[in-house]
Amino acid sequence: MTYCVGMLVNDGLVMMADTRTNAGVDNISTYRKLRIMETEPDRVMIIASSGSLSVTQAAINRVVEGRLTPGEAEELRETLDTVPSLFRAAQLIGIALHEAKMAIDATVGEEQISTDASFLFGGSIGGRKPRLFLIYGEGNFIECQPDTPYLQIGERKYGKPILDRMIRYDTPLAEAIKVALISFSSTMRSNLAVGLPIDLVSVRNGVSAPEIDVRISEDDSYYRELNERWSNALRLAAAAIPLPPYGQDSGQASLV
Amino acid sequence: MTYCVGMLVNDGLVMMADTRTNAGVDNISTYRKLRIMETEPDRVMIIASSGSLSVTQAAINRVVEGRLTPGEAEELRETLDTVPSLFRAAQLIGIALHEAKMAIDATVGEEQISTDASFLFGGSIGGRKPRLFLIYGEGNFIECQPDTPYLQIGERKYGKPILDRMIRYDTPLAEAIKVALISFSSTMRSNLAVGLPIDLVSVRNGVSAPEIDVRISEDDSYYRELNERWSNALRLAAAAIPLPPYGQDSGQASLV
Repeated sequence: MTYCVGMLVNDGLVMMADTRTNAGVDNISTYRKLRIMETEPDRVMIIASSGSLSVTQAAINRVVEGRLTPGEAEELRETLDTVPSLFRAAQLIGIALHEAKMAIDATVGEEQISTDASFLFGGSIGGRKPRLFLIYGEGNFIECQPDTPYLQIGERKYGKPILDRMIRYDTPLAEAIKVALISFSSTMRSNLAVGLPIDLVSVRNGVSAPEIDVRISEDDSYYRELNERWSNALRLAAAAIPLPPYGQDSGQASLV
Repeated sequence: MTYCVGMLVNDGLVMMADTRTNAGVDNISTYRKLRIMETEPDRVMIIASSGSLSVTQAAINRVVEGRLTPGEAEELRETLDTVPSLFRAAQLIGIALHEAKMAIDATVGEEQISTDASFLFGGSIGGRKPRLFLIYGEGNFIECQPDTPYLQIGERKYGKPILDRMIRYDTPLAEAIKVALISFSSTMRSNLAVGLPIDLVSVRNGVSAPEIDVRISEDDSYYRELNERWSNALRLAAAAIPLPPYGQDSGQASLV
């Protein structure tokens, strides 16, 4: 399993992914699922992946190799270094993902092996505003918009309520990172297949380069404290709500 | 969609279900999914249902009609009025659910119609401790145990983190109801296919009859206040956590 979140707020772009992969509960490993693609200066492109590891790795390799239209000269090969826009980059990545999935689908045949896979893709070129996309295994994609300024892939549901409540387009970047870490904390509590470390990359508006690029692991004191404070705060918040008025030990009297 | 929770704590049994059903987003209705089965005095049995409405309604009808082993006399027909134990009741309900599902599977044939369905089943006979089961569409079931004193069916994930954090076997009954309502609040915020009113039934240890039996609707002032208080408390709790130390507008200095 996997949990990845991308957020596109007024200040810029945040992308986060956990690092746990598993093929059954008896085969658990740590794999990087958030990659800053090596590109030219003044451009930054980040891919977070979820789903079949063989598909997503093959797709990334196809992206790195670039795309040559048959009959064209080698210098017309399209790569993330040369694409003129994030939109064109998302198209190339979508094609690579779909082709990788089709190639592997053909070999696994009738076996009950899932080749589902998806990407979050974000970045910025030439100081322009960052953009964020969710790319499906079929190669099509959707773009993140201010009304719902985040996208998720993988184990989405456990961490979604806190994002729905707290993330708006005007949420400051650091605040957005904090809320996303709370979202990871809830997810990791409820699904063992999502686990530390968490990779985190942010890109601030106007600068087409990573601002933050860290791996948050078990011994990260900030994450540990966030986790503890959040658990305690939830406990206190629930305790502060009066008991329901429906039963015999009703809390109706304490309702103000 | 549906969300149902059953909790079996030291004080007794709680069962809750929303009432929204939908066949596509353009066909949304209110259906009761939590039923107190009419039984003899000194026994209470409650079924909450999720999944295909035609399957669960057919299964409930089969349960009400009872089960006659072929060749046996009519007075040996097994019903919820006569079963000696909750376990036997769960078996009968499992058989009814599986048979209803098989009958409808046979008619829908190759159509892409889901006949998945499941029940939460709880109750008490003769003042004995309540028991709670999750019954699958295949008729098999699991029983709720003190280590994880709750079971869910339907849209489980949004509301699970708060249950994981707050519900223990020694949680008082009224507290458990409060936390379950918070769990519904999170679920309804993230999935429109789960909606008010919520049906709530509780059974206290030692009394084989419902203690609480209410429908919580839009105009329930307690639920409205719980919803608001919880949203505000989450906002305050997140605000009270220092900003992460990773970026330029880092909150490292404020970490204590």
